[in-house]
Amino acid sequence: MKNSFKVAVAGAGTVGGAVLRLLHDNAELIAARCGRRVEVCAVGARDAAKARARYAQYAPQFVKGWRRIAEHPEADAVVELMGGESAAAPCIAAALSRGKAVATANKALLAARGDEIFAAANAAKKPVAFEAAVAGCIPIVKTLREALAGDEICEVTGIINGTCNYIMSAMRRGMTFAAALSGAQKLGYAEADPSLDIDGADAAHKIALIARLAFRARPAAESFPVEGVRNFNLADIKYAAQFNFSVKLLAQARREKNGVSLSVQPTLVPNDHPMSAVNGSMNAILVKSVFSGETMYYGAGAGGDPTAAAVVADLIDIARQNRALFMPQDKTPPPLVPASEFCAPYFLRLRVLDRPGVLAKITGALAAQNISIEAIHQNESAPGCKVDVIILLHETTRGRINAAAEMILLQDAVFGPAAIFPIQRFSQS
Amino acid sequence: MKNSFKVAVAGAGTVGGAVLRLLHDNAELIAARCGRRVEVCAVGARDAAKARARYAQYAPQFVKGWRRIAEHPEADAVVELMGGESAAAPCIAAALSRGKAVATANKALLAARGDEIFAAANAAKKPVAFEAAVAGCIPIVKTLREALAGDEICEVTGIINGTCNYIMSAMRRGMTFAAALSGAQKLGYAEADPSLDIDGADAAHKIALIARLAFRARPAAESFPVEGVRNFNLADIKYAAQFNFSVKLLAQARREKNGVSLSVQPTLVPNDHPMSAVNGSMNAILVKSVFSGETMYYGAGAGGDPTAAAVVADLIDIARQNRALFMPQDKTPPPLVPASEFCAPYFLRLRVLDRPGVLAKITGALAAQNISIEAIHQNESAPGCKVDVIILLHETTRGRINAAAEMILLQDAVFGPAAIFPIQRFSQS
Repeated sequence: MKNSFKVAVAGAGTVGGAVLRLLHDNAELIAARCGRRVEVCAVGARDAAKARARYAQYAPQFVKGWRRIAEHPEADAVVELMGGESAAAPCIAAALSRGKAVATANKALLAARGDEIFAAANAAKKPVAFEAAVAGCIPIVKTLREALAGDEICEVTGIINGTCNYIMSAMRRGMTFAAALSGAQKLGYAEADPSLDIDGADAAHKIALIARLAFRARPAAESFPVEGVRNFNLADIKYAAQFNFSVKLLAQARREKNGVSLSVQPTLVPNDHPMSAVNGSMNAILVKSVFSGETMYYGAGAGGDPTAAAVVADLIDIARQNRALFMPQDKTPPPLVPASEFCAPYFLRLRVLDRPGVLAKITGALAAQNISIEAIHQNESAPGCKVDVIILLHETTRGRINAAAEMILLQDAVFGPAAIFPIQRFSQS
Repeated sequence: MKNSFKVAVAGAGTVGGAVLRLLHDNAELIAARCGRRVEVCAVGARDAAKARARYAQYAPQFVKGWRRIAEHPEADAVVELMGGESAAAPCIAAALSRGKAVATANKALLAARGDEIFAAANAAKKPVAFEAAVAGCIPIVKTLREALAGDEICEVTGIINGTCNYIMSAMRRGMTFAAALSGAQKLGYAEADPSLDIDGADAAHKIALIARLAFRARPAAESFPVEGVRNFNLADIKYAAQFNFSVKLLAQARREKNGVSLSVQPTLVPNDHPMSAVNGSMNAILVKSVFSGETMYYGAGAGGDPTAAAVVADLIDIARQNRALFMPQDKTPPPLVPASEFCAPYFLRLRVLDRPGVLAKITGALAAQNISIEAIHQNESAPGCKVDVIILLHETTRGRINAAAEMILLQDAVFGPAAIFPIQRFSQS
């Protein structure tokens, strides 16, 4: 057997610990897959003594910080699991400059500084693998690069934030947003400051990486519309259910005529599609491509063990010298299509005074934007009271619907804000 | 750019034609992935003139039969899409012996003669890739070999026959078996002789290949229980729905204490799991593994275009020299566990005379086998009439439940056959 493949790990938190345990527990299996043993040569942590106390049996050396990990003379690959930018970016750069491959789970860093990092990887002829950065153990990076390598991707749509999906699932069972968030925090799905998750930024980082893989897009931060679940209204889940839809926070990247559109927003999903049954903290990513049609990938989007499985799969790919791990050197990326051109059927909910003429004004404003109505529903109420009106709209653009909503909200019998969500379409199975 | 990668294709039917079209339509994309162009050098067909008339723009040469394809002097890889054994086996052997890699969609051949074929591939140091043989474009072969390469697989459970799933989905909407089968035939999902699909053999071939990948098992043909949907009773779908289950034809390979169990049988799936919403001809495969937990892969399991996408993904992997394509040379495979030891919660439906004492005898027979009851349901009926009794059983073995059913059917107030289906358990999400 050849020399073993040596790995140095920067970061000894939940994921780092799980990587150490997985490499240890499944050492024989992994050696059989790689043709050589994969061995940890060193672990770097903020508190080396604490990491050593915890993981002594998994590594021969524990050091403080990342510098000696990135420059470790024995390491063939460096695993970056520190998160953040300030240490992770120089760690990855230092590892590459010393000819070491890298595996990382750092979606925020790759979304912000991917151009620089992938260029450095190509210059060093060493890959920066990042399966663990998008949807935990779901092999979406490998699938887009390899399984669908010959196919042209039309659209990638995913439930890729487990915290938001946990909250939306709990709200579907009748819980309030506040109670659902607090439940997610108790279970460890949500951070003490949950903004990054519930305002959609985490999903935005991941869909930006997906768009890079699927469409060679290189979206700058804040260049596309991102809506989270913080202001999501419990009643809208019930209204959607009346039309046989579930509401999910979907991140989407789609090839359009003139470029690529990206978005993160609550979206209606038909209840007869498997995506509607992706509940709790689970993730799922649906890909539409020309020859394969619709394929979907489902699994745990976070957690130490599933994320570690993705990191180790990357390490095995690196040890096997899988060439697909390199990001192609690109010419000009496709332009981003403005959010106003995002085309879909829509769900529109308005709060109105139940009095004559209101519906006529609403439908008139929609007609003025050339938007046609598929269904309209208003619960019974007493005249003069406030009531919710739900309107399902045939395919239109977000720009048109925003313009119509603006006109409608000028009416003194209509109360904002309106709820406007796209409806996800699937091909029939 | 390096020399192009040359492919010779044996078989110019629906899948073969789609492979030619895909390689042509996406030539630039594929060249970018591989670092060189992938070009078809020849196509072999039973009727070369007909194939030429149809696909002239996609290949420079059309020949009769497979021999000149397998031995083509320019070919780096041979694609076998003829099906059957009599031509496919010597075609693959001849290609390997001339140092050509192979991609095939031939599940029946690999299930029957995999040992011989994979040994020849390893001896030739050229892979026999077969992503297209299992569940069309769903990348389950790649996922088991690569994405989950570091993880230990516990169970693989799939809806892997589109014809049966189409029939079961149509029956769920109230159609009879005969009408559903006829619909499947009209849509081209089922052959004129549908036995291979509806009696479960096709699913058995695929799960045997999956068990080889997941557990290094090498199940002989007919060494495990295979039940299709031919005798499936429409009423049982309704009864399952009363308990919030759907019925799917599931193929399963599972690691047990003393070996590996395999089965193909109608199985109840909880309606809150995405697998219950896999309808029509779509396929889905769920994998349980130690670190990743539950992951699921969904897509079209058949059809020319999706199958071609899988073949081309294999060709790209071959051109990229992905080492994971080789089947490990094995020592002793794990033993197969007898079907009687298959352990699960069960659904039991019995047709009985509605008269005093019948239920007591039934529950007594179950108790005698140490089987405990989770729920029992009997629709209202008139005394002395026949009525269906549905019993949900806590986890037990198929052996015990068969023994109990045998005792129960001895009663003159009970009419066979009993319906006995396992219930699929998923971890909570």
